[in-house]
Amino acid sequence: VTCRADAQALDAADPLAPVGDRFVVPPGVIYLDGNSLGARPSAVDLDDAVRRQWGNDLIRSWNRNGWWTLPLRVGDRIGALVGAAPGQVTCGDSTTVQLFQALTAAVRLRPDRRVIVTDGANFPTDQYVADSVARLLDLEVCRAAPSDPLPAGVSVVSFSAVDYRTGELWDLAGITAAAHEVGAIVVWDVSHAVGAVPLELDAAGADLAVGCTYKYLNGGPGAPAWIYVAARHHAAVDLPLTGWNGHADPFAFADRYAPADGVARARIGTPPILSMLALEAALDVWDGVSLADVRAKSLGLTDLAIARADVLGVGVMTPRQHHRRGSQVTLRLDDAYLVCQELIRRGVIGDFRAPDCLRLGFAALYVRYVDVWDAMDALGSVLADVQRLGRGSGRPAAGVVT
Amino acid sequence: VTCRADAQALDAADPLAPVGDRFVVPPGVIYLDGNSLGARPSAVDLDDAVRRQWGNDLIRSWNRNGWWTLPLRVGDRIGALVGAAPGQVTCGDSTTVQLFQALTAAVRLRPDRRVIVTDGANFPTDQYVADSVARLLDLEVCRAAPSDPLPAGVSVVSFSAVDYRTGELWDLAGITAAAHEVGAIVVWDVSHAVGAVPLELDAAGADLAVGCTYKYLNGGPGAPAWIYVAARHHAAVDLPLTGWNGHADPFAFADRYAPADGVARARIGTPPILSMLALEAALDVWDGVSLADVRAKSLGLTDLAIARADVLGVGVMTPRQHHRRGSQVTLRLDDAYLVCQELIRRGVIGDFRAPDCLRLGFAALYVRYVDVWDAMDALGSVLADVQRLGRGSGRPAAGVVT
Repeated sequence: VTCRADAQALDAADPLAPVGDRFVVPPGVIYLDGNSLGARPSAVDLDDAVRRQWGNDLIRSWNRNGWWTLPLRVGDRIGALVGAAPGQVTCGDSTTVQLFQALTAAVRLRPDRRVIVTDGANFPTDQYVADSVARLLDLEVCRAAPSDPLPAGVSVVSFSAVDYRTGELWDLAGITAAAHEVGAIVVWDVSHAVGAVPLELDAAGADLAVGCTYKYLNGGPGAPAWIYVAARHHAAVDLPLTGWNGHADPFAFADRYAPADGVARARIGTPPILSMLALEAALDVWDGVSLADVRAKSLGLTDLAIARADVLGVGVMTPRQHHRRGSQVTLRLDDAYLVCQELIRRGVIGDFRAPDCLRLGFAALYVRYVDVWDAMDALGSVLADVQRLGRGSGRPAAGVVT
Repeated sequence: VTCRADAQALDAADPLAPVGDRFVVPPGVIYLDGNSLGARPSAVDLDDAVRRQWGNDLIRSWNRNGWWTLPLRVGDRIGALVGAAPGQVTCGDSTTVQLFQALTAAVRLRPDRRVIVTDGANFPTDQYVADSVARLLDLEVCRAAPSDPLPAGVSVVSFSAVDYRTGELWDLAGITAAAHEVGAIVVWDVSHAVGAVPLELDAAGADLAVGCTYKYLNGGPGAPAWIYVAARHHAAVDLPLTGWNGHADPFAFADRYAPADGVARARIGTPPILSMLALEAALDVWDGVSLADVRAKSLGLTDLAIARADVLGVGVMTPRQHHRRGSQVTLRLDDAYLVCQELIRRGVIGDFRAPDCLRLGFAALYVRYVDVWDAMDALGSVLADVQRLGRGSGRPAAGVVT
């Protein structure tokens, strides 16, 4: 790809091109922040949920409109995108809450061990929750990269499949196998991977996993997260957030907790139904979409972005090897904040991460090759202008959200 | 009130009557389940949130449309309804999660004590979470009614202000004072009280409180819950759910947790923005509403329901004394499930709680005296029919939701 017409030719041959029509991207915007908040699928509309289901059907909607079964129904649809057979995923709450739920349950599966391993480059919440669980249960946290050898006595390994900052993709199956070899339980956070790279949680032998749904699953702002519990752990898993929705007989309103069979025991309290209905509708965009096509296009888009960054002489933090790359490209720039703001002003939306990272996310369902070309062209102009005007710097008052 | 015209006269004199127009109640329905899921305020519409804020403004909405500050903004509006000065409430997550957060923080404020007291008649989740926190931290749970004397060595007292089953209202200030006298921390669950009875959390000296927003606050199905942390505890309170939203400098993405100042430290992960925007809009119905008027009307409505139940010879579980009554009336019926279903078929929506309770909730903002009259009239007809047809029984496959 050496000119804009080449990019246009790739778009013309793209099997996912028609899927782009299922999304709304505002005119004049090139949206490269779907790794933070996915674009709106045009079919998402909460009018029926608000007016008919809530307004008219009221409390009867729990049965009539399937609200009660919604977390498991949506869970199975997410499961299908992460290589999980039905009955192992439930949806609800925030990623933080699901991480707490998963990590606590995981350490309880290894009561004789005392060390939680997490990546010192893991997303902050993942590290904070590991520290919090360790403090609650008098355990230790050891920070190590996913590629490091595991220390002795590890109870739980908590890693992200894709590094939120650099976009590095880790070998989920290999790391899981290595952890199992030393008898550890693995909790995967696939927030930056689900919908972006093919995941095979069952095949990889994953124990527990969590993920968000507002990035590459396009579920809307703060769309509820989800938890995967491998079927082989269902009987033993002992979850700390014992809301009545996860009870074996919730409508008996018993005074002692008894967990439901299966992944239903991972249900917590009443979930945010309106947000979850938006997510359910958003998942329709995956109908007929092959994750292999998504992966192939994602690599094509990120290859192009990296090649153009090289031409501009900009540092690339994201691995160049395909098997080590998720669906984002992170550039290192002295004036990353300023450049990011100026790109946004010109309609190219990426995000800034302190201290010097410009993150560009490539959601293969709706980003085109020509968008990448134009975005990198805009970056070139901005860099030339910044160089001409002299350097600025600064931090956002309240930045954009991961 | 001895005839329907008397009820109509009370409605004509009701200062809250115009507020009823701010709600949608479907034609042919008398809605007495606002204690489970509040009716939809007609101004709630998520079109702008979905299309403009998410669809068009995308990630920029975190600043441009105030998504980042939404939990604290909504928190303060809820605070105004529960007697909390600004800066002590934040909104998000489910009541279960907030209970876990509050109880864990509360026991940490009394590290030398080992007993959590909760009501054996408390809502199931409240009991389950007390048991779970105790098990995590090797404490004991003692079940006692809010009116019982407290045992020695109590660290935390966890009660609900209004009993979800009977509608009994407890003396929040008196019980808080008694707990403080023995050095305990009090966690109040005001889910069945907020928006229904005036609460004065600050004046009562409450320590922590949680509540839901989908009952008398009409925030929509699964609308996010909230937590109150009294300002005097802000510096010391040590919360277990350490999501990055509660960090002192969230956009620094630091690898160690440092809690924010004030109640912002009780923020957890990214909240369900669409559900929270529905709640924010729903809170507009309180503009210009006096909680004293709400309380007066609520007592009038429940007085009328109790008087008509007496005429029908139906057992009333709800206390008759005003100061011991929330905003619901619970009837004890042999065929409660059958009667509840038959009432719903006739357009009178209440709910059933095992084994023999028919719960009728009276949301003073939109329930009229004539609705109470007609509902109790319908109950009389149903009871006559049930008697004539002989008894049935049964349990719901999946019941309605508290």
